[in-house]
Amino acid sequence: MAQTRGRGRPRGGTDSRSRILAAAVEAFGETGYEGATIRGIAERAGVDPALVHHYFGAKADLFAEAADVPLRPDVVVPLILAGPRAEVGERIVRYVLEAFADDGVRRRGVMLLRTAVGGRAGSPLIVGFLARELLPRVAGRLEVPDARLRADLVASQIAGLLMIRYVLRVQPIADAPIDELVARVGPTIQRYLFD
Amino acid sequence: MAQTRGRGRPRGGTDSRSRILAAAVEAFGETGYEGATIRGIAERAGVDPALVHHYFGAKADLFAEAADVPLRPDVVVPLILAGPRAEVGERIVRYVLEAFADDGVRRRGVMLLRTAVGGRAGSPLIVGFLARELLPRVAGRLEVPDARLRADLVASQIAGLLMIRYVLRVQPIADAPIDELVARVGPTIQRYLFD
Repeated sequence: MAQTRGRGRPRGGTDSRSRILAAAVEAFGETGYEGATIRGIAERAGVDPALVHHYFGAKADLFAEAADVPLRPDVVVPLILAGPRAEVGERIVRYVLEAFADDGVRRRGVMLLRTAVGGRAGSPLIVGFLARELLPRVAGRLEVPDARLRADLVASQIAGLLMIRYVLRVQPIADAPIDELVARVGPTIQRYLFD
Repeated sequence: MAQTRGRGRPRGGTDSRSRILAAAVEAFGETGYEGATIRGIAERAGVDPALVHHYFGAKADLFAEAADVPLRPDVVVPLILAGPRAEVGERIVRYVLEAFADDGVRRRGVMLLRTAVGGRAGSPLIVGFLARELLPRVAGRLEVPDARLRADLVASQIAGLLMIRYVLRVQPIADAPIDELVARVGPTIQRYLFD
């Protein structure tokens, strides 16, 4: 995962843009926003740095593009909170862990966690997303007292789980089966939301 | 918090070393390991970069010194796990949150979280501490099946709580009273450990 250049992928042509984007996700994910450089990303992608600037402009623009997660809270939140109330906690944990089982989602998610926590660049993005998009939407549908604090508590457990399992990769939780984690963490989420 | 230089603290003299260390904790905490520079840290501390090198050597050495947390798992873990078993979860949450209420501990803790998650420098340190020092010690005293996974789950909730409350500072959890968080999160830790 550390080195992707030199894998013999084709150079130039129409896929340069997507190679640059994949390299950016990797680089931001490994070293955080501050540590990643246009030069290093270009090298990973096997292109000239000028081409990175050509397609994406400055580092901040490239990051914004790389961080563009297709998570739509207005679609996902109602979907998860619908269905039997007693299983909402387990559904949330399962939804997140199954999403992260996908390589592309996981790489992008790790990148976002790293940059959100690691420096200045990602924090406003993540905090803005959590505080203005995701959590109020969850809270708005709960119909319980202290809904906003409950949503924060859910975020704390999910964020910590992703951090220990996927970013720090502490064992045995890094390789624990999804079903086991759903069974252990689901009741926590359920209690934060409704008890 | 962003700018500490120019606060009119005395320059030179015997406290240069501790000023540099405090500046390093702040700088690593704000920008992560990769983003912090000896030059920037020297500027915050109001000293010449050569003095930083003189006292601490390279950036990696300065980081190691700044990250030297006085947390002794061999002392703390038995202390917390002693006492009534039914209250262990609450005691763990209270211990951590009360420790973080201290400015110095919080700054250092935020620095470690940021560097652990944000880049390469802190990760081995934090992962090593969690995986070799803290978690096996907790697990070793539990006398329950799957003790190591349980310890990981506890770490995930505590890490996520610290991240959302102190690093990302999402409201309302960032300003929630310690007692309220002990009451809400304590039972989670209790369940992960013993249920």
